[in-house]
Amino acid sequence: MQQQIAVITLGVVDLARSRRFYARGFGWAPVFENDEIAFYQMNGLVFGTWLADQLEADMGARAPARPGAFALAHNVPAREDVAPLMQRLAGVGGKVLRAADAPPHGGFRGYVADPDGHAWEIAWNPAWPIDENGHVTFAT
Amino acid sequence: MQQQIAVITLGVVDLARSRRFYARGFGWAPVFENDEIAFYQMNGLVFGTWLADQLEADMGARAPARPGAFALAHNVPAREDVAPLMQRLAGVGGKVLRAADAPPHGGFRGYVADPDGHAWEIAWNPAWPIDENGHVTFAT
Repeated sequence: MQQQIAVITLGVVDLARSRRFYARGFGWAPVFENDEIAFYQMNGLVFGTWLADQLEADMGARAPARPGAFALAHNVPAREDVAPLMQRLAGVGGKVLRAADAPPHGGFRGYVADPDGHAWEIAWNPAWPIDENGHVTFAT
Repeated sequence: MQQQIAVITLGVVDLARSRRFYARGFGWAPVFENDEIAFYQMNGLVFGTWLADQLEADMGARAPARPGAFALAHNVPAREDVAPLMQRLAGVGGKVLRAADAPPHGGFRGYVADPDGHAWEIAWNPAWPIDENGHVTFAT
C-alpha cells in the first residue's frame, strides 16, 4: 500500500478567521473554498480547513479542539527565516507556544498555534532536503 | 512561501502499539525509529509518531489526546478497497468511528481511529488524481 496521506483536515470554528491566518501568515492561497471548507493544494497532498461541526458530523465523533495531540510542521530554507515567520503568524491571530530555539536533534524551531489551537512547528532543518515542489525527504 | 507541510507528527502513548497499527494495518515501514519516535517517508512529506510527552515537551504545550479536532486521510484506488482496509485497521488496534458510506460530496469513505484516538479517513475519491509517487492533486 502507498505510504500516502491524501488530506490533512483541521477543524476550525471561524472559516474567515482561519483563512486570514493562512493567507496573511503563510501567504497560502486556497484552490477551492465555499462557506464551510477551504482546500489548499500542498506538496503532494491537500490541506483542508473545515468547520469543526461539519468535520465532527462527517467522522461521526465529537471533537473538542484541544491543542497538543499532534503538530504540523512547515520547514523554511534558512535559520533566519524561522523567527520572522513566527512573528508574522502571531500578528494574524496565531499564538506562540514556544519561542524559537535549537532542539537537541539539531536545526532551529519554534511553535505557533493557529487561531483554533492547532500547533504548527516552524522549523529550519538542514538535514532534510526539500525540492522545488516542496516535497520533503527524510534524512539523518 | 511554499505551500508545504514538511511533517505531520502524532503524539502516541505506546510506540510499539502504534508501530504495529501502522505496519500491520497500512503496511507501512518506518524509515527511522528509536525508542521515542518513528518516522515514515510519505508522499512528499514525513509522518512521525512520537511519544506524546516528548511532543508536548517539544512544543511547550500540554496535550490531552482527544480525537476529532482533525483528521488525516488515506485514499485508496477503488471503492472496494475502503471496507477491507478499515477492517484490517480495526483488527490491529483501530476503532471504527464511522462505517464506510457515500458522503454527499461523492466517493466513498469511513473513519477509523488509531490506537491513540487519531482519526483516519479511509476514502475512495475518484475526482482527485494520485500519481505513482502518491502525490495527490485537488480537483473538482
